[in-house]
Formats: sequence, C-alpha cells, structure tokens
Amino acid sequence: MLKDFKGSKDEDSSALKAEIRALRERLLAQQQLVRDQKLPVIVLVEGWAAAGKGSLINELISEIDPRFYNVVSPVVLPEKEERYPFLYQYARAIPENGKIMFYDSGWMEGAVRKFLRRDITKKQYKERVRSVNEFERQLRDGGYLILKLFLHIDQDEQRKRLNALRENYETEWRVTEDDLWQHREYKVFRETYDEFMEQTGKTVKWHILDGDKKRQAARDALRLLVEMIDKGLENGRYVGKPFSEKFPLLKMQKLSEVDLSPSLDDEEYRRELKKLQKRLGELHNTIYRKKIPVILCYEGWDAAGKGGNIRRIARPLDPRGFDVMPIASPEPHELNRQYLWRFWTRLPRSGHVCIFDRTWYGRVMVERLEGFCSEDDWKRAYNEMNEFERQLTDWGAVVIKFWIHIDQDTQLARFTDRQNTPEKQWKLTEEDWRNREKWPQYEEAIDEMLQKTSTENAPWYIIESNDKKYARIKTLKIVIKALEKACEGQL
Amino acid sequence: MLKDFKGSKDEDSSALKAEIRALRERLLAQQQLVRDQKLPVIVLVEGWAAAGKGSLINELISEIDPRFYNVVSPVVLPEKEERYPFLYQYARAIPENGKIMFYDSGWMEGAVRKFLRRDITKKQYKERVRSVNEFERQLRDGGYLILKLFLHIDQDEQRKRLNALRENYETEWRVTEDDLWQHREYKVFRETYDEFMEQTGKTVKWHILDGDKKRQAARDALRLLVEMIDKGLENGRYVGKPFSEKFPLLKMQKLSEVDLSPSLDDEEYRRELKKLQKRLGELHNTIYRKKIPVILCYEGWDAAGKGGNIRRIARPLDPRGFDVMPIASPEPHELNRQYLWRFWTRLPRSGHVCIFDRTWYGRVMVERLEGFCSEDDWKRAYNEMNEFERQLTDWGAVVIKFWIHIDQDTQLARFTDRQNTPEKQWKLTEEDWRNREKWPQYEEAIDEMLQKTSTENAPWYIIESNDKKYARIKTLKIVIKALEKACEGQL
Repeated sequence: MLKDFKGSKDEDSSALKAEIRALRERLLAQQQLVRDQKLPVIVLVEGWAAAGKGSLINELISEIDPRFYNVVSPVVLPEKEERYPFLYQYARAIPENGKIMFYDSGWMEGAVRKFLRRDITKKQYKERVRSVNEFERQLRDGGYLILKLFLHIDQDEQRKRLNALRENYETEWRVTEDDLWQHREYKVFRETYDEFMEQTGKTVKWHILDGDKKRQAARDALRLLVEMIDKGLENGRYVGKPFSEKFPLLKMQKLSEVDLSPSLDDEEYRRELKKLQKRLGELHNTIYRKKIPVILCYEGWDAAGKGGNIRRIARPLDPRGFDVMPIASPEPHELNRQYLWRFWTRLPRSGHVCIFDRTWYGRVMVERLEGFCSEDDWKRAYNEMNEFERQLTDWGAVVIKFWIHIDQDTQLARFTDRQNTPEKQWKLTEEDWRNREKWPQYEEAIDEMLQKTSTENAPWYIIESNDKKYARIKTLKIVIKALEKACEGQL
Repeated sequence: MLKDFKGSKDEDSSALKAEIRALRERLLAQQQLVRDQKLPVIVLVEGWAAAGKGSLINELISEIDPRFYNVVSPVVLPEKEERYPFLYQYARAIPENGKIMFYDSGWMEGAVRKFLRRDITKKQYKERVRSVNEFERQLRDGGYLILKLFLHIDQDEQRKRLNALRENYETEWRVTEDDLWQHREYKVFRETYDEFMEQTGKTVKWHILDGDKKRQAARDALRLLVEMIDKGLENGRYVGKPFSEKFPLLKMQKLSEVDLSPSLDDEEYRRELKKLQKRLGELHNTIYRKKIPVILCYEGWDAAGKGGNIRRIARPLDPRGFDVMPIASPEPHELNRQYLWRFWTRLPRSGHVCIFDRTWYGRVMVERLEGFCSEDDWKRAYNEMNEFERQLTDWGAVVIKFWIHIDQDTQLARFTDRQNTPEKQWKLTEEDWRNREKWPQYEEAIDEMLQKTSTENAPWYIIESNDKKYARIKTLKIVIKALEKACEGQL
C-alpha cells in the first residue's frame, strides 16, 4: 500500500553499482534463452508524475540488445476522443514471443486517471478493473511473463520535482496540467491507486518501488525482472488451466434439432431485401453519428453462403463506415502473439461496422480439431472469448454472432456446383473436402461452442441457410433489430 | 480537363443495366485469376464533395467477394495535426498481392485541399505533386495495377445536392464546413484539380466520370476496371525498368580506401561519451518539442558493432520518444506488398526518433546477392530509395545513414569471440559465416550503394569501427551536429 509505504534506507553506492552491473549481466545472458524459449515478457511501469518512470526504463534497457525489447508510451486520451475499447492500445502492444515490452505507464493510469477526471462513471471504472484482471490472466495463461511496478514518491518530493522541472526552460513543457492536477489531488490519487492495486494484485502481483532512491529502484526493478525471467525459463512456458466463470448464457438449440426447411420465394425475397436494406442504410447513418461500434461475426459451414450473406449486409452501408475482415489462418507474426491479438488489432473505430468473415471462434473449431493448440488452450478459450466480447460490449459495441447453417446434403450439392462452375472453382479447396469428412466432430465442437458462448450481450444466432434467400433476410432483420435497440438507448 | 468537360448523354436504362450486369460478371470471374496471379490492384476514387464517390464504390464492390477487396477513406487532417509524412496514410493502405484496394478519395484530395486551405506552401505543394508521381510510378513498377477516377459534377449540381443533404435531418451532418467552402471556391478548386491531373497524369492516366449520371458513371468505372485487370492478366505482372534520375549525390570513399586505424583510449572515450550523451539528451528534448522527426539508419558488416553503437545513441533518449526497429527478413504479409511498405508502416511520428537496425537497403545488398528480387528490381531501387528519403526530408525529417565498417580480420576475431562466449553465441549464425564468404561481392554491392544513394538530404557516413569506441563517438557527433542544425532551422 502506498499509504503506509516506508521509504528504503540509503545503501552503499559502490555495492549498489556492483549489484546493478551483475544483474545487467544476468539479464544480458537471459536474452538468448528468452528468445530460444520464445517467452514473451511484459514490464508495466506505473507511478506518479515526475517519479522517474522514463529514467527507470532507460536504466533497465540500457544494456539490452535493441532487437530484444520495445517501449510503448500509451496516451490517456480524453474519453470523448477515444475511438477504441479501453484495453485496445495496451492489447495492440503486447510483445511477440521472445521479446520484452516495456509499458511506460499503462492500463492502471488509463483507468485511474479517467475515473478521477470523471471521464467515466464508477460503474465503468469497475468494468475496467475487471477487464484488467481478465486481460492479465489471459496473457499469463497464454504464457506471458508479467512484471508490474509502481514507482512511488511522496507529495513533498513530487512538489520539489515538478517545481524543478518548471523552473527550467528546457524542461518546463514536460509538466502538464494533468500533472499539476494530480499533485493537488495527491491524496485522492493515492487512495485510488491503492484501491486499484488491491483489486488487480491477485493474478499478477504489484511491486512498489521507492522513486526517491533512483539507483535502488533500478536495482530492485532489475532484480525482479531477472528473477521473473529465471523462473520462467526454469518452469517453461506456462499454459493456463481451463475454468469457467458463470456467464449468463442463452439456451441454444442443438444443430441437429434445427429445422432447415424455411425458404422464401423470389418475389417476397426481393421485396423484403429492398425494404430491409433501405432501413439498414438509414441506421448506418445513425450509428455513425452516434459513434456506436458494430461487430458482426460470421461463422458457418463451408459453402453455407457466408459470402453472399455478408454482401447483402454490406450493400446498403457507406463504404467509409464499414470493413469486412476476412480471417484466414494466422500468419507467423500473428502466431507469435496471444491468439486474440489479431482480432484486437482489427477492431473497428467507434461508429464503424466491422464484419468478421470467420472469427476468434476458430480457436474452438479448427484449432481444436486440428490440434493447433493444446486442450487446455481451447477449453480456456470459451471463457476468454466471453470476456473479450463483454469488454467490447462494455465499450458500447453491438456484437452479434451468426452461425450460417446448412445440412450435409446441401453442402455436397454446393461443392459439386462449385467444382463444375469455372468462376466458382477458387472457392473450393482440398481443405473443404477434408473438413467435410470431419462433419460429426465439427458438429460436436460447434454445439459446444454455441452452448458456452451465447451470452446476452453477444448472442449467437443460428441462420438456416439451406435457402440462402431466407438466410439473408433473417440476418438482415436481426442486425436491424439490434441496431434499432442500440440507437434507442442513446440520445 | 474539368474545365471543358462535356456531360455524357442519357443512355437507355435497360441496356445500361444489362451492360453493368455483364461487367460485374466479368469482374467476378476475374477475382480468381487476380488471386492466382497475385496482382495487386488500386482504385483511386477522387471527385467533388457530394459527387457520389461512396455510392460509386458501393456499385463497384456490390458483387465482389469481401475477401477480395478493401475500402479506405483517408482523412485530410489539418496540417498541424499531421504526425506523419504526406503519403504515409496512402502508402500504409496499399493492397497485398491478389487484392483490390479502393481509396475513397486519396492523395489528390490530400494535396489539393491542403494547398487551397493554405495549410502548405506552393513549394510544399509542388513537392507533393512530385512525390505523388514517384509513388505511383514505384507502385506501377512494382507490379501494381492502378486506376484513377475523378467523379465530376458542376457547381449547380453540387449546390442542389448539398442543399438536399442539408434539408434532411438524417443527412445534414454529412455536409461539412469544408464541403461548403469547396462549393464557394468551386472555380479555384476546379483549376487546381485540373492542374493536378495534368501534372500527375503521365505515369498513370486520369479518367473523368460524369457524376451527373450515376449508373453510367458506375458502368464506365466498371468497364475501366475490368479492362485494366484483363490487360494485367494478359501481360503478367509488370516489372519496371531501372532508370536514374539525377539526384545530387555526395562523393563517397570506396570501402577499400577507408583507413580503419582510428581509435580512442578508454579515458577519452568515457569523457567524450558522457559529454555527448548529455548533449544528445538535451537535443532530444528540443526535437520533441519542435516535432522534428528523426530517422537514423544503421547498416554494417556482421559483428561490426551496430548493436552497441545503437545502445550508446539510445541511452540518453527518453524512451517515450524513440524506437529501435530491428529489421529481419520480411514476413509473408510483408513480402506480399511493395518492398518499401514495411518501412512506411514503421516510420516514427513527428518529434520522435526512430533507429532502424538494418533498413530498406537490404534490397541492394542481401536481396540483390541472394537473388530475392530481380535485377531490374534492385537496380531500380537506388532511385526509389532516394525518392523515398527525399519524401521523408520534405516532411521535415532528419535522415542519417551509417555504414558501420570493419575489415575482414576484425570480423573473424569477433566471430571467434562470439563462438567462444556462451552469452554471445546467439548473435552468431550460420548465415553470418555464409555472408562472410561473399565478402567481395558484398563489398562491391555496398560500394555501389554508397555511391548511388548518398544524397545531401540523406547522407551516408562510413563509421570506422575496428575500434568500437571510436565508432560510437563519431556516430554521436554526427547525430548531434545534424540535430543541432535541424533545431536551428526552426523556431
């Protein structure tokens, strides 16, 4: 706790120097091993304004090979300028395997400062605290080593330092209005920092360093880092165990119970399509103005008609305000990071629509069945994806997930048609045939996925697509209803 | 020319419909071939406010598979909010091989609007026109197919449309102050658009479409697109021929003539290092405040001491304001785009320092010698890289390039040392030994590179690094001198 933090005693400076040198050498020697074992490392440096976070990081990296680390300095924007979910800029910056990422302040500052500035409500703040815990746990369970440091100085020391900076023309600009405000509100900040650390210290511990004693703080940070890495190297890459949080789940039909007979005749289809697309175009205007982010997720059997369905949704949208994100197998730089990273980085700005053509649910379908991840990994994923989506809906996003469904006979007919139609052949691959052979295993995985991840905030809809026209109309109606609801809720 | 543009006659609507349908089918059939042949396609849609650019793009994409295209809508920021070079947001968005990227307005709007708004001077505007020509030629020479469209309406029609939009509550917000200003200044805009199209129409032709006739414009655009792709498919991927523009080049020493004996004793080194690092730290403050971007490029023999040299530069810098970018072999998603793309996307924000640990010059060294690109490709690259760097210095960046130089004996000694020192072994790979065998070929390539790409705005410096201490001090001095000069030039 900052409240009763006892400063550390002055240590002998030459002994300290020797200690730092020795720790740096150990860190240097660890580089190669961290790379070989592909351990990703996160060092979060939080602390008071003028506590010396930048200098501390500089001490830590001074001897490390630049290929081995990066530093990010996330900016705390005013809430109204934020176009992405709270954790976006932190999640984007996670290191790839074998590297260290230093965060020069991060999610603690992002949450606390906004709360104290009354940019966000108490409720939102609590949601952020929860999402921080989820984020850290997910990274830890994905094999990330995380060190969280808080660099502490007391109010007197802060005053001295801020004054010193302001007295010098060269450094004056470094003191921001926000820093002065923090200084005036030192006590409130301290209480909130303490509370935040208490609430987020269970999964990954916090370490408070004495910012008064620069060299000692550097030594302490180095030691903590070296020890964490040693332990990580010794134990090998951690894989988190699955567990289930109690998300309020919607009851879903089993695929085998779905009646696939519904269909629409051409005339009705065209009439409805026209009407619904017009309505969707209007709503797109509104969500754009109200800055509501919309995330539409498409999963479905091969040849179920995802592409055509997506096109009918996209047709009335202003191309300035939407993107279709086709998700293929992950590329090497994506495989080198936690599996949700490539979705974090593809999120839409607020007010935009993003249509994912396949999604993060690949984790519990193809990755599960093909053994691309461990059993613990995919079993953990249900919960992690529920958390991820709740973070998106906390942000204000509309999240809807479609399972485009057909039966095996229909798939065969469509495959055969693709095979026989030159312009469609590219759509049919060997892999499609191989997947088809595993229909029963996939069906089991999909049923499990639908049961475990259909939440009230991010529900699944099974779309009967033996008749593609019926499927398109049903999808459009669902999207429209959700957007109407979202628009109502806001001014 | 817009000035004497004759509107097109009304056509029979059912014939038009049939024609559009037929063109769309051709485009659909082309998808697969464009993917197979890995052709990247750029469609730039420029035009007047309210001319219907968005709708036109929507017509074009309405039947295309979403995996096949993307749409970007670059924003024209006020110049003072721009943190990246002019072409940055356009270069970032170029499509990967086998895909189409639609630009919903682009570099024409970016240049013209800023010029008319007096955000940039006439001189800067001319530089931008030149850089647009360079950019388009580089993409074309790299195999990109580029279609440039301008959607035209006259001033009366624009007035009608803007009024119609403003009268409706749902669409009112779409009309911006900028649009109204364009309308008032219609004539000036028209002249400048005309001039811009004339000056940028040689490498890649402009096509003016009649925005008055929506369907006809869509048909024309579709036809142009389909014909361009057909031609591209027929001729195969284009590889531009090398040519040399007359850049004012600095005379460079040949590597074999460099005297590698200079050295520094420990004491002098430490004294100088301390003094210079202090100065560099101060200058970092200043360039940060003055928003000067700094790009330091490191190339050099394996084991020449790049890493240690970079660390001495990085040491005094505030980690919030700099990044080291280690450049390894390109990843698949990078190989799928023009070769400079992975450097465009890594450029620093203004006011930040970016240290490239290896650079775009890999093109004329390893890629040349290992045959990773064609002879035309690497021969063209000297000029392209000069242009790229001039675009960076036009932006205001300080660009400095270091060749860290040692002789063969020194390299052997350092390789042997690495081999015998466990903590250093990771630095030495099989590839290093293979490269060493090609020393003479590399030396020839490097000499050619130094001769052809050392420009006044982005000079090369050969750093004698048989003695690493000497090398570090020399590098620091060069950086400091360049930053001092850059800071002087500004308020």
